[in-house]
Amino acid sequence: MAKITFQYENGDTVESFASAGESLLDVAKKSNVPIDAPCSGNGSCGKCRVKLLSGELDSKMTRHITEEEYAAGWRLSCCSSVTGDVTVEVPDIASAYKSRMKVADLSSKEEIAIFEQAKAGVEGAGIEMKNNLEVIDVVMDPPTLDDTMPDNERLVWKIREVTGVQKVRLPFSVIKDLAANLRESNFNCKCVIRKTANDIFVYDVLPGDQEARIGGLAIDIGTTTVSAILLDLKTGEILGKGSAGNGQIRYGADVINRIIESQKPGGKRNLQKAIIDETLNPMIDEICRSAKFPSSKIYRMSIASNTTMNHLLLGVDANSVRMEPYIPTFFKTNSVFAQDLGINVHPAAHILLAPNIGSYVGGDITAGALVSMIWNRPEYSLFIDLGTNGELVFGNEDFLMSCACSAGPAFEGGDISCGMRATDGAIEAVAIDKDTMEPTLSIIGDEGQKPVGLCGSGIIDMISELFVTGIINAKGKFQREGERIRHDKYGMGSYVIAFEKDAGGTKDIEITEVDIDNFIRAKGAIFSAIRTMLASLDFTVDMIDDVYVAGGIGSGINMKNAVTIGMFPDIPLEKFHYIGNSSLTGAYCMLLSTPAERKLYEVAANMTYMELSTVPTYMDEFVACCFIPHTDSQIFPSVQLR
Amino acid sequence: MAKITFQYENGDTVESFASAGESLLDVAKKSNVPIDAPCSGNGSCGKCRVKLLSGELDSKMTRHITEEEYAAGWRLSCCSSVTGDVTVEVPDIASAYKSRMKVADLSSKEEIAIFEQAKAGVEGAGIEMKNNLEVIDVVMDPPTLDDTMPDNERLVWKIREVTGVQKVRLPFSVIKDLAANLRESNFNCKCVIRKTANDIFVYDVLPGDQEARIGGLAIDIGTTTVSAILLDLKTGEILGKGSAGNGQIRYGADVINRIIESQKPGGKRNLQKAIIDETLNPMIDEICRSAKFPSSKIYRMSIASNTTMNHLLLGVDANSVRMEPYIPTFFKTNSVFAQDLGINVHPAAHILLAPNIGSYVGGDITAGALVSMIWNRPEYSLFIDLGTNGELVFGNEDFLMSCACSAGPAFEGGDISCGMRATDGAIEAVAIDKDTMEPTLSIIGDEGQKPVGLCGSGIIDMISELFVTGIINAKGKFQREGERIRHDKYGMGSYVIAFEKDAGGTKDIEITEVDIDNFIRAKGAIFSAIRTMLASLDFTVDMIDDVYVAGGIGSGINMKNAVTIGMFPDIPLEKFHYIGNSSLTGAYCMLLSTPAERKLYEVAANMTYMELSTVPTYMDEFVACCFIPHTDSQIFPSVQLR
Repeated sequence: MAKITFQYENGDTVESFASAGESLLDVAKKSNVPIDAPCSGNGSCGKCRVKLLSGELDSKMTRHITEEEYAAGWRLSCCSSVTGDVTVEVPDIASAYKSRMKVADLSSKEEIAIFEQAKAGVEGAGIEMKNNLEVIDVVMDPPTLDDTMPDNERLVWKIREVTGVQKVRLPFSVIKDLAANLRESNFNCKCVIRKTANDIFVYDVLPGDQEARIGGLAIDIGTTTVSAILLDLKTGEILGKGSAGNGQIRYGADVINRIIESQKPGGKRNLQKAIIDETLNPMIDEICRSAKFPSSKIYRMSIASNTTMNHLLLGVDANSVRMEPYIPTFFKTNSVFAQDLGINVHPAAHILLAPNIGSYVGGDITAGALVSMIWNRPEYSLFIDLGTNGELVFGNEDFLMSCACSAGPAFEGGDISCGMRATDGAIEAVAIDKDTMEPTLSIIGDEGQKPVGLCGSGIIDMISELFVTGIINAKGKFQREGERIRHDKYGMGSYVIAFEKDAGGTKDIEITEVDIDNFIRAKGAIFSAIRTMLASLDFTVDMIDDVYVAGGIGSGINMKNAVTIGMFPDIPLEKFHYIGNSSLTGAYCMLLSTPAERKLYEVAANMTYMELSTVPTYMDEFVACCFIPHTDSQIFPSVQLR
Repeated sequence: MAKITFQYENGDTVESFASAGESLLDVAKKSNVPIDAPCSGNGSCGKCRVKLLSGELDSKMTRHITEEEYAAGWRLSCCSSVTGDVTVEVPDIASAYKSRMKVADLSSKEEIAIFEQAKAGVEGAGIEMKNNLEVIDVVMDPPTLDDTMPDNERLVWKIREVTGVQKVRLPFSVIKDLAANLRESNFNCKCVIRKTANDIFVYDVLPGDQEARIGGLAIDIGTTTVSAILLDLKTGEILGKGSAGNGQIRYGADVINRIIESQKPGGKRNLQKAIIDETLNPMIDEICRSAKFPSSKIYRMSIASNTTMNHLLLGVDANSVRMEPYIPTFFKTNSVFAQDLGINVHPAAHILLAPNIGSYVGGDITAGALVSMIWNRPEYSLFIDLGTNGELVFGNEDFLMSCACSAGPAFEGGDISCGMRATDGAIEAVAIDKDTMEPTLSIIGDEGQKPVGLCGSGIIDMISELFVTGIINAKGKFQREGERIRHDKYGMGSYVIAFEKDAGGTKDIEITEVDIDNFIRAKGAIFSAIRTMLASLDFTVDMIDDVYVAGGIGSGINMKNAVTIGMFPDIPLEKFHYIGNSSLTGAYCMLLSTPAERKLYEVAANMTYMELSTVPTYMDEFVACCFIPHTDSQIFPSVQLR
């Protein structure tokens, strides 16, 4: 066995052992070392770079590594096999994808506002914000020699009296400790219950003189990022909020690669562990710790995620999601409880899953559609969720149609050589001077933060600016020359966004024609999906009344630039609304309100799913969209005018 | 730490480590070495003998060990503390209590007859032998691109169609593997379901071309012995049967000592482990192996046991069962599933617990009362279950009253120096020649089996014979002399049942005045309970029409002798009926038939519980019964006549 040492830029190391011939990327995966590999290790994305510090690897040459870089020790880990002991450096740009936990500052009003707004929207449709969890006081007469009713019957009788509901269910978890719990409180207790018209379910029996709290957790499981908020379900107050990278990222950047990994031996379990043990549970602990709230008092969870994510979360085989005829195990299921998955909240906590409506339109979209409120308006609205997949819903109060397109991870910074998630060091906005070609960058982070890479909104700006300044043409090829423009020996052009001296990393930050091409294909996938779906309904883009944009791309998205590059339809800018992470705000409303939960099932049931890959014209549309803004510039009159 | 070596008579050893000062009995307990300690280690029963082979112990002298025995190395383990490395021999008479597994030979008709008889009795009352578990064929159209219903909905729709029931519940365990299970069988499958008028619960989805079996397990958990039978719930056929000692025995012989042990740190878990991990699961494995039946196909279990046993089984605090006002956590609960307890059958198997009706009248008695059929007859019948506790039910189709008395383990061979369970080597019947005082023994086991000790029925015979031959008087004191009669230096008499040369052990088998006294108190407890309960109803013993005797005492019980010693009322012998282990046959009927299960709840609900300890005259009755047959010999006219 060879000893493999992974060294992070901050000096931390992880040691592992491997056999000769093993792929270095596989070794990193099994050692939980986060190396970004959006293509899942087939050598096409070029992101899994590491730098040899000592020892040797058997590495293939690749177009992603120049000769100078190779000489300096740079290798692609997916194209390198182990030959003996070796130490490699794992760059921070890779670890930007790692499961980094962030607990939000709730004193910031912005963090809260988006939830208040979603709630107000749903309430505006007459949907009450109430749920069926409550705390009741149950004060019994203690037993005597003349009153020898057993504990469980004594409790059930009193709960019937207090609630007026006849059928009371005491699960085994309550029975187990009932004797001690009743006696410690001298038969004066509080019960946390779920109350419906037909029955009462008892979660906990607690001392009557203590405050009983009811926590709830809403979670958005994105392919790349996971976010959660902790609520007090009695008051609706938001107690905590956090986010982290999805720990499954090392098994591939997109759902297809994850499903493929899940089919390997132990794969389903590995992917489930990555999301539950490595992502959700640590995040729940962290949020609860920062909110000083015991996780065992979380009695309900709601989860919104795409179809693949919720299948992998449950440890359910997702292969049939990927294989024709693309059949998930479930759209909707009410059978999952925290203890089934080993999630660290109350074991009997019910997990509400936002319903899927197809293999590629999942609970994240139905939850998002709920809070977009497009189902409640006469106007024709388009809801777009820009995630690793792009999903669309179009319609109004009479109908809803949805489809998904594979945009790839470009909107979250994947598939772009200098791309990154919208975290510290990410360039979120760019302007370029037409004459000097010098850029002005807006960078996430504290004052003085150096740029590290481009996040989604920064890429949109960058490509739009390169185009309007004439630096690149409609095909994304470089057509001007200057200090910041370079061409490699194959003639491939690039633009230097920040020179090494100004950048936060160890080399120049550049955007290449390959990156631009990747992004054009991503935005082309979105726009062609919009056109195709609308066409199937005999609509054209100019008939859209409103566009609701959701997703982790960030509130910094410049709608004008997005229209300029041909990603969004060319309609008046005031018709665009950025509604943030609507998957999470939808899960939040579902958790908080049982009527909202029911409405969500109803909205999902009324949504028609359109499988784009079966529409013959989609490919033609897509090819026509792989230009800036489009081969048919008449579709973008305002861009043409400029 | 000192090294403690326990050596069995067959040469097997168990090694353990202990600190100086630890009680040897406690070391044996934590090392799972079965040393019989019915008194739970307070020095009163004298059964926890071991023999020093090497090393020393700090041992108290006790009346249970003679000076010769002490010199030969005999010690009571509860009265001995560790001082250093030591090796002790653990006699087989102690290991007779050990969790010895026995799988019954079902080719023997006797083994089956008792179940057939119980079933026929219940059926005779118009109770149908049918349950709600069944296997249905579910043949679906496989999905296509035009028929993309998800797997769970596809299955639910078809089950609705097949069964006509609208509400179908697919638990998470079914959802988890649904994709693979449906595809492996090409959507042609069998489902194991529970079907009620309101809903269907799906246990398993299996390939359509394989046979689907439905196993059920009925268990009697006695304080001393555990028995179980495995059924095919589709046909009612008995597939296997087994019994074993209750692994909790090392925590005390009776329920009170077990409850006390359960209150020590980790005690609840230890007692639960002893019954589940050390007794039930190995027994289930063994029965299933011998029946060639997969334990995962056991979809339902029924358990009959006394109130303490079912509380300890569930890991529920039993202390309030023992402490005034004697309140159990439950009489009846439907909330327990195999996975809650870690029992190795199908995780979703429902565990039907025969209902308790008081702290000391539990599910073993209600189940037994069901199959005694006394609730279905106009005649006044007495049902007696002779276990570690003695329980009685008296009544007819109009009323039922029950009570419990603490008889101690004497009927199962406990508290008797030469006592043992009714296994190989046990003397089950005895006759003594009036003139020669020579005994004739009937021994359980193969031809040539040497006697090891007395089981319950043997003790009854022995005391009756000693009494009618005038060897002992009505107080149980020896009054004749002879080769087999001995007196120790304190004047305590004993009778040698078998000399060492004829015995299966290493010393003479003797019954002493202390043993006789213990047994007289046990039989006195039973008879005084009968008299007290009947008196409270203004009945006398001669008004009893029939007596149904149940319990592990064995079909060998000689009713005439039992009457002679004043254990049972003096009524015509043809009115006595031995009905075997009615706790197990009751559990069997409950498992097999949902109407029988309902009837059992009804019988239990109609049973009045009488707490004997609160009846002022009970103690006087008891004292009067501590003679052979009774201080008032007119109560036993037939004995008086002889």
